[in-house]
Amino acid sequence: MTRGRFITFEGGEGAGKTTQLLLLSKALDRRRLPHIVTREPGGTPGAEALRELLLSPEHDWGPRAEALLFAAARSDHVETLIEPALAAGQWVLCDRFLDSSRAYQGGAGGIGDTDVMNLHRIGSGGLLPDRTILFTIDADEAVRRAGARDRGNPDRIGGKSAAYHADVAARFNALAAAEPERFAVVSADATPEDVHDRVIAALSSLMDDA
Amino acid sequence: MTRGRFITFEGGEGAGKTTQLLLLSKALDRRRLPHIVTREPGGTPGAEALRELLLSPEHDWGPRAEALLFAAARSDHVETLIEPALAAGQWVLCDRFLDSSRAYQGGAGGIGDTDVMNLHRIGSGGLLPDRTILFTIDADEAVRRAGARDRGNPDRIGGKSAAYHADVAARFNALAAAEPERFAVVSADATPEDVHDRVIAALSSLMDDA
Repeated sequence: MTRGRFITFEGGEGAGKTTQLLLLSKALDRRRLPHIVTREPGGTPGAEALRELLLSPEHDWGPRAEALLFAAARSDHVETLIEPALAAGQWVLCDRFLDSSRAYQGGAGGIGDTDVMNLHRIGSGGLLPDRTILFTIDADEAVRRAGARDRGNPDRIGGKSAAYHADVAARFNALAAAEPERFAVVSADATPEDVHDRVIAALSSLMDDA
Repeated sequence: MTRGRFITFEGGEGAGKTTQLLLLSKALDRRRLPHIVTREPGGTPGAEALRELLLSPEHDWGPRAEALLFAAARSDHVETLIEPALAAGQWVLCDRFLDSSRAYQGGAGGIGDTDVMNLHRIGSGGLLPDRTILFTIDADEAVRRAGARDRGNPDRIGGKSAAYHADVAARFNALAAAEPERFAVVSADATPEDVHDRVIAALSSLMDDA
């Protein structure tokens, strides 16, 4: 049994990751490549229960507790869904994974990248994707799309929000630059179909091997 | 404002920790020493929500996820309850803390002690108690008390349970031996009143300073 491939989609809000994940899933179906589509935080009953706790307005988790909860959810996800699927020869397409923790909790959250990686080693044996697609969009476009989502809450659209999006984008770009063999950077400033063609191009060598 | 003292009670099941915590609280009341009584996992709304997830039969957490969840609950507990209380001059009496993770998850759970301590450093800044009371009971007595609790589930009372209790006790003893200044080992093979007297003796130097 050939081990499946582990593909993650990363990037800031509004880059169209979820749409692209579904388009990729259809493309793999056409190639008869068995696969599952999942997401973080979540993907398993335990991790989805943690997702609810993380997103619940009832709890105001500090950055340290939050980083531990993301790592705990990931540990459950990897152990009970991702690793068994890969071992069974399935490809795993995951909407966000470790690199989101590195860009978000490892950055503004104040937990450094070394400790985010420590948590990942302890929780998930340090599992890395075979290929990570980083979707990038123009900074102004990111603010515009975030604004469209946050309508009615104008404080989040202003200068602070632009700086926040720029900071997250810079962290993702730095991660991609440090691991050019794992990352493929794909500009999402195009139609969904054109972006999908870029995703397929970024994965073609892996698919030809499968 | 003098910082409060942080006292933890540790040991296997059935050693009478909870009873002793209440007796100590009354003793501190008589001395007019302001204090709070709390427990792990739990102690704060966020950590109690995690306690429910940890103890729920719905979820079968692996040892890695479990260690991360205990550390996340502890992080919330330390940040939002324990540290503020200590800073306000209150003593904090806590039923189980870090050393339970070291004895349980760090042992049979397969997460080594180094990584349990790594999680504690990342989650809670490595906070250690000022004094830890380790309650010890005779191995046969531990099996008998556990048996009384587990009546109707005889599989848990047999040889495996005795070995399990012995393993946990050995781990606690090793922790106490490695940090003799922090730990006070108190035999719980006596009446609650006599055990309480031993607890007071173990804390007398701290109380005289307060």
